[in-house]
Amino acid sequence: MFRPYLSAAYRETVRQVAAWMGQGGLSARQDSAGNIIGRYEGSSAELPALLIGSHLDSVRNAGKYDGPLGVMLGIEVVEHFARKGIRFPFALEVIGFGDEEGSRFPVSMLTSRAVAGLLPEAPATMEDSDGITLQDALGAEGFVLEQFPKAARRQGEVIAYFEPHIEQGPVLEFENKPVGVVSAIAAQFRFLVTLKGVAGHAGTMPMTLRQDALAAAAEAILEIEKIGKSDSDHLVATVGRMQVSPGVPNVVPGDVAFTVDIRSGTESIRNEAATHIRCALQDLCERRSVSFSMVLQQDLPATPCDSSLTHVLSRSVQTVTGKQARVLVSGAGHDAMVMAALAPVCMLFIRCEKGISHNPAEAVEASDVETAFQVMVNFIESYADNFSAQQEKIA
Amino acid sequence: MFRPYLSAAYRETVRQVAAWMGQGGLSARQDSAGNIIGRYEGSSAELPALLIGSHLDSVRNAGKYDGPLGVMLGIEVVEHFARKGIRFPFALEVIGFGDEEGSRFPVSMLTSRAVAGLLPEAPATMEDSDGITLQDALGAEGFVLEQFPKAARRQGEVIAYFEPHIEQGPVLEFENKPVGVVSAIAAQFRFLVTLKGVAGHAGTMPMTLRQDALAAAAEAILEIEKIGKSDSDHLVATVGRMQVSPGVPNVVPGDVAFTVDIRSGTESIRNEAATHIRCALQDLCERRSVSFSMVLQQDLPATPCDSSLTHVLSRSVQTVTGKQARVLVSGAGHDAMVMAALAPVCMLFIRCEKGISHNPAEAVEASDVETAFQVMVNFIESYADNFSAQQEKIA
Repeated sequence: MFRPYLSAAYRETVRQVAAWMGQGGLSARQDSAGNIIGRYEGSSAELPALLIGSHLDSVRNAGKYDGPLGVMLGIEVVEHFARKGIRFPFALEVIGFGDEEGSRFPVSMLTSRAVAGLLPEAPATMEDSDGITLQDALGAEGFVLEQFPKAARRQGEVIAYFEPHIEQGPVLEFENKPVGVVSAIAAQFRFLVTLKGVAGHAGTMPMTLRQDALAAAAEAILEIEKIGKSDSDHLVATVGRMQVSPGVPNVVPGDVAFTVDIRSGTESIRNEAATHIRCALQDLCERRSVSFSMVLQQDLPATPCDSSLTHVLSRSVQTVTGKQARVLVSGAGHDAMVMAALAPVCMLFIRCEKGISHNPAEAVEASDVETAFQVMVNFIESYADNFSAQQEKIA
Repeated sequence: MFRPYLSAAYRETVRQVAAWMGQGGLSARQDSAGNIIGRYEGSSAELPALLIGSHLDSVRNAGKYDGPLGVMLGIEVVEHFARKGIRFPFALEVIGFGDEEGSRFPVSMLTSRAVAGLLPEAPATMEDSDGITLQDALGAEGFVLEQFPKAARRQGEVIAYFEPHIEQGPVLEFENKPVGVVSAIAAQFRFLVTLKGVAGHAGTMPMTLRQDALAAAAEAILEIEKIGKSDSDHLVATVGRMQVSPGVPNVVPGDVAFTVDIRSGTESIRNEAATHIRCALQDLCERRSVSFSMVLQQDLPATPCDSSLTHVLSRSVQTVTGKQARVLVSGAGHDAMVMAALAPVCMLFIRCEKGISHNPAEAVEASDVETAFQVMVNFIESYADNFSAQQEKIA
């Protein structure tokens, strides 16, 4: 399954989601960036909205739940209130974003950026792998490039953004929890490390005279793993890509390059880990007479979820499950990262099998989805209570 | 510089070497495999020969000394005796082999195999990278495929094979010795190790739940290095090639494959090292919940140099340099490996700059070559004394 932004599959999905929104009591519209939005009015017209959503696009060879589950849960929850005729002192909106994965164009979260007002101009010349520009792709689906930034919502129009999403990790399954509350989306560093030793003949270069770049890299990888483990709840450090040169069986490697991905919900923890890794590299490379460089390639700040929303959500989890909410950091990126520029955000994670995502094997338990649904209902009711109490205080 | 077997460059080299042989008092002929052989008769005609030699072909982008230095030293040494009119109770022959590197056809040491009688039939259909068969390549240079195996020398026709060669390693330079005596050409194992963990999202997979194939590989590489160092004089162990899968920065590696090259002059030491490596892999993979396989891809037995020849050669080194001879194992392969099937062999290593070979930067000191020359002269004289003594004993 592959459902990239502005594809035929995406068009069909939007049509189906719009139909479900209509059946659920929401009035559906597509914004100028191609996002599908369903609205359920509050106790009076034109009230600001609590926005619930996630994305409808997918990676290549995708599973069913990464993104769409959050949109479906939003519709179900709003339908629940609509059927009972319950209105809140705010509107409820459900959004299905058109592009989160960035699996068609070279930028991800293109459409939530538009909604958050972070794209004053659409990137007209950006091309997909077939050479189709964003302009042409929009045009083919009946959109107009110049209108793309008009998907932006005004500040105040959205009072909060709530995103339910599969965890894409194994923590909830490991701890036997149906759902979890996200405290932050992790800050991320990506470094490229290059090690330069001296290549040599595998048969004639004695062990004691070697300046083996791969042996140095091996020591570095174990140090990086150790540093990553030093704060197990809030830190991950990964060497994912590695190239060995010359890379032939009978030559001691002279050059190695590898990436280091470091993430933590707390920027200072991530930053300290990077410093420790640099020091470890310095030490081991000096000892091994190997030179190194460690170049920053990507620096994404942390996105903390709104603490009061997260507090309310944690209480809802406790009410529904009878157990204290598991609060965890999201190591993966989400539209909520971008939406935080527009409104306070919070996220609910749903347990998924073995933590697998971006794979047809993605799976969730129906009973966990039901728990998420109950938590969301409770959250909106609690949020409404707080909201009313606050309005009265202001009055 | 590139001088593959049966190329125009090889033809020119053979012509020049034959001319130098003639000037040095040797009668030159090319055998049916294209090797150039110069003969200096002993005290009577048709005596068996002490054969001195190395190869004239080269790798791509080669240096000047790997191979030809041994042939040139052989000619110089024979010329030294010829000028003085000294005859021995055996003939002296110098051979320049046509193919040692295997840089044209997929088999190396093709022409020494022919001389040692190890090729009862020439591999007719073997092709170079341009699709030229050995048959055609021989034909183009005036040779006949069917005659190729006739390069074989009869047992007894060659009483010993002596190969001077650059060290291709840094030991002599490190220990400040001009020359060294080879005790054996190392036994070699090549293994392919594959590690299978579980790929995971670099952001969402906590450190404690990972089954990281690359972290396991890193631990393995350090164990292999440690085992390689456990017998520094006689053992080397190298991880030269490595592939990481999926090999993207934001995914914990699920699969890693790497080669392990293990060499020692003593087969039992090599075999023990392989066993230790397998045990270490077993332990660390079990601890990390990673599965592994370790498959033998190549097994070359050790070629011990003849102990009495090596003893005589060591004494010659001591006589000439005034210091005890450094005896070392050759980690690289040489024609002597093959020639050991025909006659007892010994090898003299000449120090080369930084141990560099297979590279235009290959370099030797003229004074080291002079030392090698003196050692060879002394060796032949000592060998002749022993030979005569033995002949008298037999008589």
